[in-house]
Amino acid sequence: MNKQELIELIYRKKSFLCVGLDTDIKKIPKHLLDKEDPVFEFNRQIIDATIDFAVAYKPNIAFYESAGINGLLSLERTVNYLESRRDEVFLIADAKRGDIGNTSEQYAKAFLTQEGYNFDAITVSPYMGEDSVSPFLKFSDKWVIILALTSNSGANDFQLLETTNKRKVYEEVLLKSKEWGSEENIMYVVGATKAEMLQDIRKIVPEHFLLVPGVGAQGGSLEDIAKFGMNKNVGIIVNASRSIIYASDGVDFSEKARYEASLLQNEMQRLMKLYL
Amino acid sequence: MNKQELIELIYRKKSFLCVGLDTDIKKIPKHLLDKEDPVFEFNRQIIDATIDFAVAYKPNIAFYESAGINGLLSLERTVNYLESRRDEVFLIADAKRGDIGNTSEQYAKAFLTQEGYNFDAITVSPYMGEDSVSPFLKFSDKWVIILALTSNSGANDFQLLETTNKRKVYEEVLLKSKEWGSEENIMYVVGATKAEMLQDIRKIVPEHFLLVPGVGAQGGSLEDIAKFGMNKNVGIIVNASRSIIYASDGVDFSEKARYEASLLQNEMQRLMKLYL
Repeated sequence: MNKQELIELIYRKKSFLCVGLDTDIKKIPKHLLDKEDPVFEFNRQIIDATIDFAVAYKPNIAFYESAGINGLLSLERTVNYLESRRDEVFLIADAKRGDIGNTSEQYAKAFLTQEGYNFDAITVSPYMGEDSVSPFLKFSDKWVIILALTSNSGANDFQLLETTNKRKVYEEVLLKSKEWGSEENIMYVVGATKAEMLQDIRKIVPEHFLLVPGVGAQGGSLEDIAKFGMNKNVGIIVNASRSIIYASDGVDFSEKARYEASLLQNEMQRLMKLYL
Repeated sequence: MNKQELIELIYRKKSFLCVGLDTDIKKIPKHLLDKEDPVFEFNRQIIDATIDFAVAYKPNIAFYESAGINGLLSLERTVNYLESRRDEVFLIADAKRGDIGNTSEQYAKAFLTQEGYNFDAITVSPYMGEDSVSPFLKFSDKWVIILALTSNSGANDFQLLETTNKRKVYEEVLLKSKEWGSEENIMYVVGATKAEMLQDIRKIVPEHFLLVPGVGAQGGSLEDIAKFGMNKNVGIIVNASRSIIYASDGVDFSEKARYEASLLQNEMQRLMKLYL
């Protein structure tokens, strides 16, 4: 999906919501456990319940890898399930990969081009620099989402260190990495716990899309994110995972997920009117 | 495997060689392609040919992921193949993972405890800070290998930035992260292209093991690594991947791999005598 299509999708659904599929077999409703593939069944029902309100889905790859081959089959089934509706969703592999060039090439191939794993975007760690990121930028209408400022407490350890250029490390990441591609193929992860920092971030990357995790379970106000983070093309995708997918652990889980997603979409619609 | 056992293994084999299993089906000898699992067959023969000279193996997870479920089955078979010889080898998952706490927990579970994936160690990116690394440190006799200074050109982009503390970013990583565990469960990746920087690194982490990639295909002198990087317990594991596993692409590939590994082991034995 290219940038124009993504923007149109956001306006069509009046939503910039991404649903994080951090699906943990220990947390899904018990009545699904006798299904052949409970994790896929859970994802399928969550997708059906929320797709009217969400523009993106973001499987967190760790949750599937930790279940071994079966986990990866669940992931593949989930991606395949969305195949016929790919004009309705932007699909993100939350993988946080990044390695030397020949290895990143393998990861790019794995997530962006492999049959059954045809993601639109993959999250990538910037620590190893340009040649660890650039192999992901070689595919048309595919995206790299580079970690800049994350929403966890450990973000303070290195991302917020100040360099002798009078910039924080995450600002150096933004400034340097935006030269490796364009706003047509690079987005940035910016944690929602620091919404006011979005103002500074917008000075460095005014045009890029930002993926903002951390609404819900990790805290963070949607209004502040919109106020400080939006640009004229919306320019933000806001992720919620646990607050939607685990809204209930009973037989009504998909109904509750739909309700939570609708609340967020509603608020997003209001904010789009307010700030655009 | 704990630190004492690792040191004993190194002295027993008179080697601190790690063989990187960056196995790419497009690069392995053609005569293996009609085997049921060519990648596993290649790894099996490489392991048999080099195990006398190597103390560690390091499958590069990207190469297996990029081949989908079949690739992960090849990886699983490779790890299983080594199961009965686990006192002879230290097994590293070169995965470069790192995510928020609950996700890193899933990766830790995936690589360090999962049946068939029982690695001794996993490489981890430090960008997201303490809570992204600490879940990997909860298993006894298991190791985290944190990226500090990598051997690729992109290392210059952020790792070598100078902070207002008058330290490079990678030095901040060493200094802070060593507090998260101990030299019994943390190692560091330090690229061999900067052997002279090992002196500075040893000032910050004198006791920790260092995993040094980049001998061979990525350049780097073994003598300099030993001279600047060794401590009284050897303290280094040096990785070679392509120069060993792709020494030949003919039917003699395992023989040639054995020869290349033996040359490195020989030199390592000399350097251990010289510097210890």
